[in-house]
Amino acid sequence: MRPGASFHEMWRELLPVGRSAATGGYRRHAWTGADAECRAWFREQAEARGLAYETDRNGNQWAWLEGSDGTARAAGDAVVTGSHLDSVPDGGAFDGPLGVVSAFAALDELHGRGVRPARPLAVVNFADEEGARFGLACVGSRLAAGQLTAEQARELRDDSGVSLPQAMERAGHDPDAIGPDPERLARIGAFVELHIEQGRNLAAEGALAADGADGAPAGGRAVGVASAIWPHGRWRFDFHGEANHAGTTRLEDRRDPMLTYANTVLAARKKARLAGALATFGKVAVEPNGVNAIASLVRGWLDSRAPDEETLAAVVAEIERSAAERGVRDGVRVAVTRESATPVVEFAHGLRDRIAARLGGAPVLPTGAGHDAGILSAEIPTAMLFVRNPTGVSHSPAESAEEDDCVAGVRALADVLEDLACP
Amino acid sequence: MRPGASFHEMWRELLPVGRSAATGGYRRHAWTGADAECRAWFREQAEARGLAYETDRNGNQWAWLEGSDGTARAAGDAVVTGSHLDSVPDGGAFDGPLGVVSAFAALDELHGRGVRPARPLAVVNFADEEGARFGLACVGSRLAAGQLTAEQARELRDDSGVSLPQAMERAGHDPDAIGPDPERLARIGAFVELHIEQGRNLAAEGALAADGADGAPAGGRAVGVASAIWPHGRWRFDFHGEANHAGTTRLEDRRDPMLTYANTVLAARKKARLAGALATFGKVAVEPNGVNAIASLVRGWLDSRAPDEETLAAVVAEIERSAAERGVRDGVRVAVTRESATPVVEFAHGLRDRIAARLGGAPVLPTGAGHDAGILSAEIPTAMLFVRNPTGVSHSPAESAEEDDCVAGVRALADVLEDLACP
Repeated sequence: MRPGASFHEMWRELLPVGRSAATGGYRRHAWTGADAECRAWFREQAEARGLAYETDRNGNQWAWLEGSDGTARAAGDAVVTGSHLDSVPDGGAFDGPLGVVSAFAALDELHGRGVRPARPLAVVNFADEEGARFGLACVGSRLAAGQLTAEQARELRDDSGVSLPQAMERAGHDPDAIGPDPERLARIGAFVELHIEQGRNLAAEGALAADGADGAPAGGRAVGVASAIWPHGRWRFDFHGEANHAGTTRLEDRRDPMLTYANTVLAARKKARLAGALATFGKVAVEPNGVNAIASLVRGWLDSRAPDEETLAAVVAEIERSAAERGVRDGVRVAVTRESATPVVEFAHGLRDRIAARLGGAPVLPTGAGHDAGILSAEIPTAMLFVRNPTGVSHSPAESAEEDDCVAGVRALADVLEDLACP
Repeated sequence: MRPGASFHEMWRELLPVGRSAATGGYRRHAWTGADAECRAWFREQAEARGLAYETDRNGNQWAWLEGSDGTARAAGDAVVTGSHLDSVPDGGAFDGPLGVVSAFAALDELHGRGVRPARPLAVVNFADEEGARFGLACVGSRLAAGQLTAEQARELRDDSGVSLPQAMERAGHDPDAIGPDPERLARIGAFVELHIEQGRNLAAEGALAADGADGAPAGGRAVGVASAIWPHGRWRFDFHGEANHAGTTRLEDRRDPMLTYANTVLAARKKARLAGALATFGKVAVEPNGVNAIASLVRGWLDSRAPDEETLAAVVAEIERSAAERGVRDGVRVAVTRESATPVVEFAHGLRDRIAARLGGAPVLPTGAGHDAGILSAEIPTAMLFVRNPTGVSHSPAESAEEDDCVAGVRALADVLEDLACP
């Protein structure tokens, strides 16, 4: 089967699952009905190919192809590829599913090429990568890697108060055994995650790649290799003012936290720009949130990322300082809480260089987004492939990729798997 | 009974109703359980005094004292006082209830003075003044005055989708008869609403009133008279950007509506300050409102007020222009919808001057807040008394007034009623 045909069929099957008719965006949140449909689809794909299907203790799904030389799954040289099937609220179709669909399609491509891998190969779907429901990203891989304890995971709750174990149980997964899975990880010699690029670096590679090996047209490269994930974190800024009547309180008598918040939003953008970093306020909660009431509390969440940890710390410190200074002027108290922090991830250099060379000098580029591959890179050799995103848009219904680029991604992934699994 | 004793007892009874243990603020929203408790309290007060109780077609409550000379209620010279008992979300104890409690206490004071009013007197509690539940203020008085049609009122819905008629019906009030009530208004010769001042004008009157007739200590005046209500309105600003991944989208590729919103918040403050007006963004809604997602839509509601309509229009036009200009820079489309507009209210000059003189030259001052008295002033001669607010805080649990000032307010209201009802 041509990789395009296999890819296209799977893509079409998965496309309607969990899609909102109102927004066109996906709502495939962990352990919901839409997620269960995605997981059933994964199992069908595994079984249709005669792969050995299993769900691990943390709810991650695996589909195994034994090595042709009879290598056991426990040998530590397995090559694994995959990504996740869940989504952010109103996310796009590609973030996650492209990596899983491409993984199955790459196995089909290897089969079509007549390749018989010497090493075991597996496709994986990590549970709850986006953290849209329980607020923490990469829960499935973090649990497996021991970066999240079972006790911590049991404390996670969604907005309705449902705990992660309750949600797992309702979805038919026994939550009692969640926790580190070192034996499973020890089987794996390399993990390669294919993902749509979140940004326009590949699309902007243009002039360099007029006749690139991956067949991309002039104006970009279809496929690239990840160098690193920027360090990033979330900080909650609480701006405490004083509720009052918007129609009667003199401007000079106000302690309006909306002003301090607004000034901090603009300061964050400026500080990030000057440092070559990213800073975003995308979530806000206001009390009492009435049209004719000056707010008593504005809560804004800062997401910030930078090429290195020193720059990140400096940018956030400057944003905090700016908020505090403006707060004094507005009579507003500012309290900042770091809600999460993820250090820089450098993907294994040897694996990265080998893959880039195999793909004819594919561009090597960093990303600001977290991934299961980033979590696992602390435990096993890990790499990522990116597929060109013409608009750079992600975490949005407008997220898109050209079908030719997706097929190029499948072919590149098959090349990489062949290289790694047939030594 | 001393006005202080009667006032104090009623105040203590009403104080716990609808108060949130978490915030200390009041949640007496129209046609809820807390509102029903307040309404039951009103009826008890009426009946305890032998007043004729009735609920009008629009759910406003009335307690009538017939004129001592046998004047019928239909005569057109009735003197009415009162206010409302509902609250904004997490509002204070005084906004509304002070006027109703003071009205009953003023009747007690007249009784204690041995005054027998020649004209009919009534206490009124207008339904749904704050508009906290259905989004429109002064529904009870607007309906009575024909400034809101029954058809428009039937379209009002709360955040749960419950319509105003459904809410009325569940609270035991027949909604079929809602609509204009000209016969009832024609009975009234004067309406006087006592209200806590929302602002610090009376507290700042200081030097002028070291030995004022209302017995206020140096440093303020306990009671004032309203001159006018500033024109005001609500405008919804929709900032349309593009959802995207906060961790991967280059700053220069973003269309982030939070930036445009933030800049507009700061511009609104500046434009208002320069024009001697008020402008507030106190309510915001963000989509998708995720920490790691650039917003696709930020919706902010502007409340603006000014001494005259020309200034108000100019200030809002400047804020709109500023938003549009910044929107071009941010790649954000800005759409502005005027949700409500209330023209300036000039209270009846003759009534105002008579009251100010009767109160020994009480200060006459404007306000930015809307009131049922403002609605009714288009139909009947209307006046307002303000009671000093030491901090100026209103629409907040921190709203406060000194008990001595409340008692001074009761005495002043009794003086005014005696003057108007015993000609």
